[in-house]
Amino acid sequence: MKNKEITSRDVDFATWYTDLCKKADLIDYSSVKGSMIIRPYGYAIWENIQKILDSMFKETGHENIQMPMFIPESLLNVEKDHVKGFAPEVAWVTHGGENKLEERVCIRPTSETLFCEHYKKIIKSYRDLPKLYNQWCTIVRWEKTTRPFLRSREILWQEGHTMHETKEEAVEETLRMLKIYEKFQKEYLALPVITGRKTEKEKFAGAVNTYTIEAMMYDGVALQNGTSHYLGQGFAKAFGIEFLNKENKLETPYQTSWGASTRMIGGVIMTHSDDLGLVLPPLIAPIQVVIIPIGNEEIVNPVIADLTKLLKEENISYKVDNSNKTPGFKFAEAEVKGYPIRVEVGARDLENNNVTIVRRDTLEKNVVKKEEIINTILSTLKTMQTDMYNKALKRRDSMLYNAKDIEEFEKYTKMPGFIKTNWCGSRDCEDKVKEKYGLSSRCIIDEKVDGKCPFCNKDAKYKIYWGKQY
Amino acid sequence: MKNKEITSRDVDFATWYTDLCKKADLIDYSSVKGSMIIRPYGYAIWENIQKILDSMFKETGHENIQMPMFIPESLLNVEKDHVKGFAPEVAWVTHGGENKLEERVCIRPTSETLFCEHYKKIIKSYRDLPKLYNQWCTIVRWEKTTRPFLRSREILWQEGHTMHETKEEAVEETLRMLKIYEKFQKEYLALPVITGRKTEKEKFAGAVNTYTIEAMMYDGVALQNGTSHYLGQGFAKAFGIEFLNKENKLETPYQTSWGASTRMIGGVIMTHSDDLGLVLPPLIAPIQVVIIPIGNEEIVNPVIADLTKLLKEENISYKVDNSNKTPGFKFAEAEVKGYPIRVEVGARDLENNNVTIVRRDTLEKNVVKKEEIINTILSTLKTMQTDMYNKALKRRDSMLYNAKDIEEFEKYTKMPGFIKTNWCGSRDCEDKVKEKYGLSSRCIIDEKVDGKCPFCNKDAKYKIYWGKQY
Repeated sequence: MKNKEITSRDVDFATWYTDLCKKADLIDYSSVKGSMIIRPYGYAIWENIQKILDSMFKETGHENIQMPMFIPESLLNVEKDHVKGFAPEVAWVTHGGENKLEERVCIRPTSETLFCEHYKKIIKSYRDLPKLYNQWCTIVRWEKTTRPFLRSREILWQEGHTMHETKEEAVEETLRMLKIYEKFQKEYLALPVITGRKTEKEKFAGAVNTYTIEAMMYDGVALQNGTSHYLGQGFAKAFGIEFLNKENKLETPYQTSWGASTRMIGGVIMTHSDDLGLVLPPLIAPIQVVIIPIGNEEIVNPVIADLTKLLKEENISYKVDNSNKTPGFKFAEAEVKGYPIRVEVGARDLENNNVTIVRRDTLEKNVVKKEEIINTILSTLKTMQTDMYNKALKRRDSMLYNAKDIEEFEKYTKMPGFIKTNWCGSRDCEDKVKEKYGLSSRCIIDEKVDGKCPFCNKDAKYKIYWGKQY
Repeated sequence: MKNKEITSRDVDFATWYTDLCKKADLIDYSSVKGSMIIRPYGYAIWENIQKILDSMFKETGHENIQMPMFIPESLLNVEKDHVKGFAPEVAWVTHGGENKLEERVCIRPTSETLFCEHYKKIIKSYRDLPKLYNQWCTIVRWEKTTRPFLRSREILWQEGHTMHETKEEAVEETLRMLKIYEKFQKEYLALPVITGRKTEKEKFAGAVNTYTIEAMMYDGVALQNGTSHYLGQGFAKAFGIEFLNKENKLETPYQTSWGASTRMIGGVIMTHSDDLGLVLPPLIAPIQVVIIPIGNEEIVNPVIADLTKLLKEENISYKVDNSNKTPGFKFAEAEVKGYPIRVEVGARDLENNNVTIVRRDTLEKNVVKKEEIINTILSTLKTMQTDMYNKALKRRDSMLYNAKDIEEFEKYTKMPGFIKTNWCGSRDCEDKVKEKYGLSSRCIIDEKVDGKCPFCNKDAKYKIYWGKQY
């Protein structure tokens, strides 16, 4: 079985992905180049993600704030590494109505500079620390290519910005937020992510260290699905932020920032979905159960009324497909949309007191007695969430390679996935891997190292993952 | 009693307002001209507003969507009245990084054009109607003056955009959303708003009719606190949107749009607050109860622990002020922040099993037995919400005038508030009132008319309110 309007993912993964995003009504394009419309069904996934992440942030003491969306050119220029990283890709506003602005302003590509300016005003004493702020907003980076959820000029995201009394506290916060992203992506998005540290080359412009969440898509390509930066005192010094410490001496605070975006939705699609359409983890699916009536309304409607009442009580989101399409058409649509569970309530099945329940991930059919529907739904949603994670984990693990030397490395470069190697830590070797094999470093992982770097034969300092990336 | 850092509202209302916004940590300024930072305490009010309004929108069948933030110049130009209204105040993006754009794009000042372009693609048949979309986003209008929450270059708001099969349905939707804004502002914000229709002069650029929510501030000045537009077929025709109706004939759909913004927060402040600080309606206050321990910790802490447990169970938001400031300082701060209820838990009072509860709106003190705290809090929060509405209503009604002729009208123009008159409906009379008395039309209200227009002595067609506006 196969949906004819969706290209097969094994034939052309990129086309499969964009077909699916459009066909499942997640996104649409407009005359605004480089931007996309996130349609209600896609936006509802984002709302679910926001709700869960936001409560995880608040539970760990973070507060939401709203900064301006504009950054005056002079403010962007304050931290030199940062401006070098972002200036080539910002959108510049030069006119307000008919009037040329005295100083042009860019639309925030990220908001470190704005937060620093504000922190300078509000942080005076150690009593004002830590400051744990987060912002849900849209940022703009003038990308040349567009891919739904993965790469576009406008990005919906959240950016956390925190200030701390000590280096230890700031490093702890950086890792705490990395762990929150990891937990969220594993438990809610069912993504078996790898966490680690970015190399000097790949780290955030202005950071001391960048930690990353790396997910592997169905095609073995990496998706960087969230980052957490330890910024040290670099921005704070550039902005002149100081506080009186407990010894009544002026000191510079330590900073972090961390962000994750709608890109996570892309990661969910490219990990779990198939040629029939979306497969969504139950915990973030906007509609968890679709109910399809078949046959005599007088027989099926009362059963559906009872079921929806129970679903409401259990806080399960559902939809009854009462459109005048054929059941077959409705099944196909339910598969495209990736509703985790499809309940077929048929008049003929009801003669035997039976109802059919279909899991979207395995397409497994389960005929159950009417009285068992709600419990079957509840347990299936739970099982499905776990099974989806385990299935993705198994596939990912089958595409994780461990290369002991350059020969093994070269062999694995011909296969999709990530390759783990020793690494000396030099930019030279990293550049060589990129030029010669088209692979970038994904992340340095916390593992014991001994032996040589396979690219230069010098002593290895790190264990690192390499891979193609989105 | 008076907070020395806040100018008195009866001395200088404008300064009182900005002092208060800053002093209560609602906002701050940055080097970004015309924009403001909404600080955590201010943003938490907005989050409460969003949560309630969003659920009211969803209950009435609306779905959230996310459109691009940019509008290409050619798209903005499609509807001629609309572009005339907005082009003078949009921010133009002309460069992406180093590169000049082929076509400049503005940042949305509102999104009718983007929605229309999308609707043209997705509406084909009457079966696709109605489309009931809403968007939470930031818009930009290049204003010359800035006032916290009331007027700034960036505005956080929601904009609803709907399409309907018939004129009747669209008009009904326009009024439904007006009613939702009215209900929300009365019941949650405790604002006694007036609803009515805008004149031709004051209506939205591109609308057939604009309905408005007009609130009266403490100083008698009007705040337009939300609008709902019946757009007819104007945009739809300009964009060529057509659908096959039930008779299988091509027809143009009917459209509405409606919006409300963080301006509502300004309205809450300027209606309810006083010289001591904010007064917030309990239903939108981020912290509903502040608990202030006084004296021996071993005595007061167990009582506070019991209380916070009960507050959690009742879903009441609270804060325990454990800072090492004096109780007097904490009281003053609680007043500035406008926490609806202050609970003073004092070791000495506890000897008699007493606790003191203070209402922020009336500053009334209530000494209650320890066992009665939670019930007193619950009932006080309820009473306070109603009392705040009634107090604001009484004040507003005392500043509503009914002028039967030009002499009465002139007399009332010397007093703060709104003046109701007959009106012939002509632009000439409306312009004259503005030029001669500095008053603009607030809204046409649904009341029986007879007699003459006081400005031209021709037959009156409408009852209308006039007033100064923010």
